[in-house]
Amino acid sequence: MTKLRAHNIAISLDGFATGEDRTFEAPFGHAGQRLMHWFFPTRTFVSGSGHEDEAVGAGTTGLDDDFAKATNVGIGAEIMGRGKFGPQEGPWEDESWRGWWGEEPPFHSPVVVLTHHSRPDLLVGETTFLFRDASPREALTLASEQAGGLDVRLGGGPTVIREFLEADLVDYLHVVVSPVILGRGVRLWDGQEGLEERFDITTTSSPSGVAHIEFTRKLAAP
Amino acid sequence: MTKLRAHNIAISLDGFATGEDRTFEAPFGHAGQRLMHWFFPTRTFVSGSGHEDEAVGAGTTGLDDDFAKATNVGIGAEIMGRGKFGPQEGPWEDESWRGWWGEEPPFHSPVVVLTHHSRPDLLVGETTFLFRDASPREALTLASEQAGGLDVRLGGGPTVIREFLEADLVDYLHVVVSPVILGRGVRLWDGQEGLEERFDITTTSSPSGVAHIEFTRKLAAP
Repeated sequence: MTKLRAHNIAISLDGFATGEDRTFEAPFGHAGQRLMHWFFPTRTFVSGSGHEDEAVGAGTTGLDDDFAKATNVGIGAEIMGRGKFGPQEGPWEDESWRGWWGEEPPFHSPVVVLTHHSRPDLLVGETTFLFRDASPREALTLASEQAGGLDVRLGGGPTVIREFLEADLVDYLHVVVSPVILGRGVRLWDGQEGLEERFDITTTSSPSGVAHIEFTRKLAAP
Repeated sequence: MTKLRAHNIAISLDGFATGEDRTFEAPFGHAGQRLMHWFFPTRTFVSGSGHEDEAVGAGTTGLDDDFAKATNVGIGAEIMGRGKFGPQEGPWEDESWRGWWGEEPPFHSPVVVLTHHSRPDLLVGETTFLFRDASPREALTLASEQAGGLDVRLGGGPTVIREFLEADLVDYLHVVVSPVILGRGVRLWDGQEGLEERFDITTTSSPSGVAHIEFTRKLAAP
């Protein structure tokens, strides 16, 4: 059974999953590196992909890297919001923007990009971006077909995470609370009051100062 | 040197330190016990005070209790907001309300209650409540005098914590992130953007599911 999993969704103590003033140069806006400071030193990030055969010994191992690494295990496709693909809004003015990730994006699998504005499928390196105007359930159906029996990753941003939580489609959600106060940006939890009742929750702190909080959907009664 | 310390300031993942709809029966409003669920089973809480000579073996020991217990160590006075003393607003209609804690409040030391509405000092058990219309700095001066060389505890609620943070008077802040989403209430962090730059921060997770986050004020350069 394909599961929908969201990993490394970093938030500030005041609940913001991204900052204000996002630009091409600043994917997290004024948050800068403050939400992902625990992630950048990890071997998974440093080695560029998290695929074990590409790890070359650089970067930290340990708890944060274990969480970072899990992001890529058993995943066959991703769903992301348009804001994760790029900072543009409205109709695509041209198709020159090919994502933040250069010519070898770290996905290595199909990525469904949710957008109201159509655009042809885009192959970059080993990753195909499929731009679709779809409901959460439709997007999950498409991504599951693309995943070839593996799980689907829900890549964010926060607005997309919320929509899939509201549709109760999320099986696993890994949130990383970074001990910073951003003050402004996009909040992850708006409209999610009482979410905890639907999940089993585990909290694990890291020497880096973050708390990894895992939400695993409760099994339905047999 | 007297320090100002805030302990056990519990917040939800969306940053609320208390819920909505507080009443005499519901000090945390709609949050109920969800913010303090880790605290109620501790020996410190069960034994009623945290004074070691009153612990009788009931309640949990371990990490959560260690944090709970630290609340009372080396404290000679407390500062609290009126909202922590009671749910009333505006002028005191009468003086029959003597706090939430019955006839033996757990403070055992002077408590400065910040209020714009005057009221005579009130002795309940071993605790004297001093009602004062004072700035954070004035309140700290008064509480420090009362503390007899010991530290002063900043008891909350969130509005009072914020005011003292803004005045940069807080030496130690222990925040407990409870993995629940409240959706509404009073936020702890409003206006505190960038607070982390002034503090050293340590995060410790507990099997109860909460993350204890300690802010210790950075020492000034010599």
